[in-house]
Amino acid sequence: MPVPIIIDCDPGHDDALAILLAAGDPAVDLLAITTVAGNQTLRKTTLNARRVCTVAGITGVPIAAGCAKPLVEPLRVAEDVHGASGMDGPGFPEPRVDVVPEHAVELIHRILREHPEPVTLVPTAPLTNIALLLTRYPEVAGRIREIVLMGGSTERGNRTPAAEFNVHVDPEAADIVFRSGVPVTMCGLNVTHQALATPEVLARLEGLGTELGRICVELLTYFAGTYRRLWGFPHPPVHDPVAVARVIDPQLVHCVDASVAVELRGEFTRGATVVDPHRYLDRPVNAKVAVGLEVEAFWDRLVAAVAALGGPARTAEDAGDPGAREA
Amino acid sequence: MPVPIIIDCDPGHDDALAILLAAGDPAVDLLAITTVAGNQTLRKTTLNARRVCTVAGITGVPIAAGCAKPLVEPLRVAEDVHGASGMDGPGFPEPRVDVVPEHAVELIHRILREHPEPVTLVPTAPLTNIALLLTRYPEVAGRIREIVLMGGSTERGNRTPAAEFNVHVDPEAADIVFRSGVPVTMCGLNVTHQALATPEVLARLEGLGTELGRICVELLTYFAGTYRRLWGFPHPPVHDPVAVARVIDPQLVHCVDASVAVELRGEFTRGATVVDPHRYLDRPVNAKVAVGLEVEAFWDRLVAAVAALGGPARTAEDAGDPGAREA
Amino acid sequence: MPVPIIIDCDPGHDDALAILLAAGDPAVDLLAITTVAGNQTLRKTTLNARRVCTVAGITGVPIAAGCAKPLVEPLRVAEDVHGASGMDGPGFPEPRVDVVPEHAVELIHRILREHPEPVTLVPTAPLTNIALLLTRYPEVAGRIREIVLMGGSTERGNRTPAAEFNVHVDPEAADIVFRSGVPVTMCGLNVTHQALATPEVLARLEGLGTELGRICVELLTYFAGTYRRLWGFPHPPVHDPVAVARVIDPQLVHCVDASVAVELRGEFTRGATVVDPHRYLDRPVNAKVAVGLEVEAFWDRLVAAVAALGGPARTAEDAGDPGAREA
Amino acid sequence: MPVPIIIDCDPGHDDALAILLAAGDPAVDLLAITTVAGNQTLRKTTLNARRVCTVAGITGVPIAAGCAKPLVEPLRVAEDVHGASGMDGPGFPEPRVDVVPEHAVELIHRILREHPEPVTLVPTAPLTNIALLLTRYPEVAGRIREIVLMGGSTERGNRTPAAEFNVHVDPEAADIVFRSGVPVTMCGLNVTHQALATPEVLARLEGLGTELGRICVELLTYFAGTYRRLWGFPHPPVHDPVAVARVIDPQLVHCVDASVAVELRGEFTRGATVVDPHRYLDRPVNAKVAVGLEVEAFWDRLVAAVAALGGPARTAEDAGDPGAREA
Repeated sequence: MPVPIIIDCDPGHDDALAILLAAGDPAVDLLAITTVAGNQTLRKTTLNARRVCTVAGITGVPIAAGCAKPLVEPLRVAEDVHGASGMDGPGFPEPRVDVVPEHAVELIHRILREHPEPVTLVPTAPLTNIALLLTRYPEVAGRIREIVLMGGSTERGNRTPAAEFNVHVDPEAADIVFRSGVPVTMCGLNVTHQALATPEVLARLEGLGTELGRICVELLTYFAGTYRRLWGFPHPPVHDPVAVARVIDPQLVHCVDASVAVELRGEFTRGATVVDPHRYLDRPVNAKVAVGLEVEAFWDRLVAAVAALGGPARTAEDAGDPGAREA
Repeated sequence: MPVPIIIDCDPGHDDALAILLAAGDPAVDLLAITTVAGNQTLRKTTLNARRVCTVAGITGVPIAAGCAKPLVEPLRVAEDVHGASGMDGPGFPEPRVDVVPEHAVELIHRILREHPEPVTLVPTAPLTNIALLLTRYPEVAGRIREIVLMGGSTERGNRTPAAEFNVHVDPEAADIVFRSGVPVTMCGLNVTHQALATPEVLARLEGLGTELGRICVELLTYFAGTYRRLWGFPHPPVHDPVAVARVIDPQLVHCVDASVAVELRGEFTRGATVVDPHRYLDRPVNAKVAVGLEVEAFWDRLVAAVAALGGPARTAEDAGDPGAREA
Repeated sequence: MPVPIIIDCDPGHDDALAILLAAGDPAVDLLAITTVAGNQTLRKTTLNARRVCTVAGITGVPIAAGCAKPLVEPLRVAEDVHGASGMDGPGFPEPRVDVVPEHAVELIHRILREHPEPVTLVPTAPLTNIALLLTRYPEVAGRIREIVLMGGSTERGNRTPAAEFNVHVDPEAADIVFRSGVPVTMCGLNVTHQALATPEVLARLEGLGTELGRICVELLTYFAGTYRRLWGFPHPPVHDPVAVARVIDPQLVHCVDASVAVELRGEFTRGATVVDPHRYLDRPVNAKVAVGLEVEAFWDRLVAAVAALGGPARTAEDAGDPGAREA
Repeated sequence: MPVPIIIDCDPGHDDALAILLAAGDPAVDLLAITTVAGNQTLRKTTLNARRVCTVAGITGVPIAAGCAKPLVEPLRVAEDVHGASGMDGPGFPEPRVDVVPEHAVELIHRILREHPEPVTLVPTAPLTNIALLLTRYPEVAGRIREIVLMGGSTERGNRTPAAEFNVHVDPEAADIVFRSGVPVTMCGLNVTHQALATPEVLARLEGLGTELGRICVELLTYFAGTYRRLWGFPHPPVHDPVAVARVIDPQLVHCVDASVAVELRGEFTRGATVVDPHRYLDRPVNAKVAVGLEVEAFWDRLVAAVAALGGPARTAEDAGDPGAREA
């Protein structure tokens, strides 16, 4: 039985790959895609979700837009990382899937109430929508099987020395999620930095010979440029699919139990996820924290998912088409 | 034309008087009463709102329950101030008005959309519902004429040396409200401590000769005991009606423009409202801040409202009835 | 027996009056004057201490310069309040008293060790010197009879909405002093704002007919201008002599026992003195906190001290002499 | 020409090795050893410094005791790491070297003034003494060639998830040092965790056949037990000699320029050293930060230093002597 999941995302290059993995892998049943402001504005991340579904032929999955800004902080997007569109690189055709008229929080709430089984939430973005859900509908917490999120770090951050982007953008939302009592698994930079899109990975995606494979390569090529330029990475990490992989097969992502606190007050450390396996701080365990990734198997699943989604084989004409690239 | 208002409250002795003032004064049109956790749990504050409406004969005003806990903080109620029921003192009959099935935030949202004019919100409780409204439905901010709240202080607090109760209970919600861009008027302890229910005030209410007048006296007598015991006040301040009075007649409550910041990080000062008329902190003006109260005129309006609501004249039998006092 | 005291100051208009009160009142024995950066740089506050002693004929009291910057914070002086010289207004003759070659902390330490009785410290400035003394020579804490300081507030501040100047300039030093275990009495803005130099006060000082009286009037006239311009005060408060008055006669300044915490972490409240007589925060009593001033008796002592110091009666020539006013 | 240095320490097992390296290596000239509270109380760390000098035959180097507690924080020692004596493990003979009567800060100050060249300070302990020196004698900052300290981390801490012990114990002192303008090199856990005392290292020390070599082995054996028990390390890191090694030969410890801020305010992160080579926080470079260690060469220098200090070859009798182990 596939695990029913909802992805809450802000595409975002790596969010795109998380959607593809979730839609293409048989071990999960992608019930909905919800969007939030983060890597770019809500308008752009929502458009990007529609683009990903369009090029991947994902048609039966409702897409709903959620919060346009964090709970307390003003919005700070990652244009330096993901470009002006939030998903720069490939040209995309006009999207052929639309959003549903419900707010993300209402859609998630309705699915949680109506689905016969508890549902796993996979946030790969600032946790604003999820925190709002838990605040507005606390009674459905019991219908959430687990929250498996990409965010935080056991080590350094990537937006400040101490804070990872998703938690940095909305620290209060992250705090609400980690203290909600819902089972939380945190896939942070410490593991996602192992999921590097090497030339071998790109060759495998290219080798699928499909339009979707080509788009993945273009996404990752743009992302590689960002990571080389900003941080000197030889190959770019694809953060968000790691959280999906954990749901697909828990063996792919090794976790330990730990207390995780979100630093809300520091002058230089606001948004840090303080992970405490040694129990220095004498706080109860409230999360599973990813500490290792089965890298090969991870890429096998991701490439297989992109292959399964397929799409039309690439033709010479496609290859030459510069597409409808947004400015 | 009366000003359309919604009271968001956590009754609470002084919340009860705020409801009576709003329901009994012709200058405002009370569209709804919403409740939130604060002085007591949501279950108790909601029951108390129903009790107030029952004894005051307020039947056409919808009551909706909202959030059962603050956004980030755990709930800390004021049982020492308001008693186990949240409104200790009088006996109350079985409530004859019920809550509507909508969540407070949905009810406020619907009224804001449907009412022909912008509506004034009068929160006299932790600002959780209002912050949730602004987060979930940012597009209706423009339908809010003004938020006139009881909360904060230009001087000392009453839950900690620096923080007033309503802001202390949910500082993040207060921060969201003060930074929302919606016009905010803050009626803090510095003015509400001028609204003292002296023996003369009690005599006027008693002198109305109505059951409702008697209940007001019993509420204020209990409240007087609290304030004498905890803080040595000779007479108890009735905080919440001051915010309603500001809407009824702005001349009753003198205000100045100032920047107001909510301290979210302090070790000893979290929840303080930092009011800065001297612009020490070089922040923009974001609120009107109450600095003076026309005390006589305030009590005139309050007594008149209780008189207008009337209710059956008190009989000897009523006077001897111990009522259905909740344990 | 006069109480032996050391004044640690940053003159400063009101520091000047504190020195005069301490030097001219028979109830205290002024053993030393030490200076610190605060109202102005150390160089300027030290020069000003020498000027005050020169014009008042205080010759036997050693003056020593201490710390030129706060422990952790960069120095922020109050040039807007005290002018470019730190004591603008009167012209001053070339100082005829010099500083001793010892650092303030060494001088205080030596006096504490050598004086037959415990000595009272009266800081009227940022507490940098005193904190350094307690850190470097913790063993002499027992030789300090009491620290009676001007600083903090039970209510609002005067450098930020929450912080009084002396504590705001060096919050860590204040924290060290309040948690040192040495008996501390805090004379904050809440009482010093009662010590207003009204026209009647100025007339009394003028009426002494002495050069020193005239200089006091000029100091207070400049200070009056500052307080009118910055804060709209009708008459200027003279903060620092209140702490000296408390030592001279404890009946002049009424105090209560309370816990006092210095807020070190707040975003908007750093440097606030959190005074907690209601024990909201469940912390032990660590200070006496001034809450009332015998205003008339206070001014009587201050005018008497200036009279006692005397100095040459003012001549017509003096009155016309513009003096050696520093640029 | 050997580099003149002063070690400011809180022995401490690894402090002991730092002293030995500094005393035994010809590239540095150890002018003084000063002590401070940290791993244990000042009384114990000072006794331990005397013990180390005694067993190593270091007789011409003055030892001075400094501060017995941090500037702002209460003292929290590391008895769980270093034992009741602060240097548990070996038995030590009665110390035959004494402390000088000067306070550590006075001794350092005097040396800085009198030594013909600028002197390098090597703190391997909480930075209380150094911060006090810079506060009390700011004018000698220019006589400090460099402060090469063991403390902080670019990654996780070892007293809390975010804070390394030395900085955690006195964060304000660390802040004063990092913002002093004196050139600072930080050797944090990220490099000292590479300096592992493996069985091969122990065999080399044992193989020296000297009493001092044996004591080193006993120190490291005790320390190994601590690190295995508390943190699961296979071999114990010897933090403090890394800072000395950096002075001996800068090539041994690779550094990068970065801004380093000490987090003073966080709820969970106070005492973290926020190292920002990517300039996320837009702060100026204020330190060199160690990022790599030449492990083999490091141990070569350390073993050579212990060999150079020599001491009597171990006899059978010594081996059986339980020594004067303190309870």
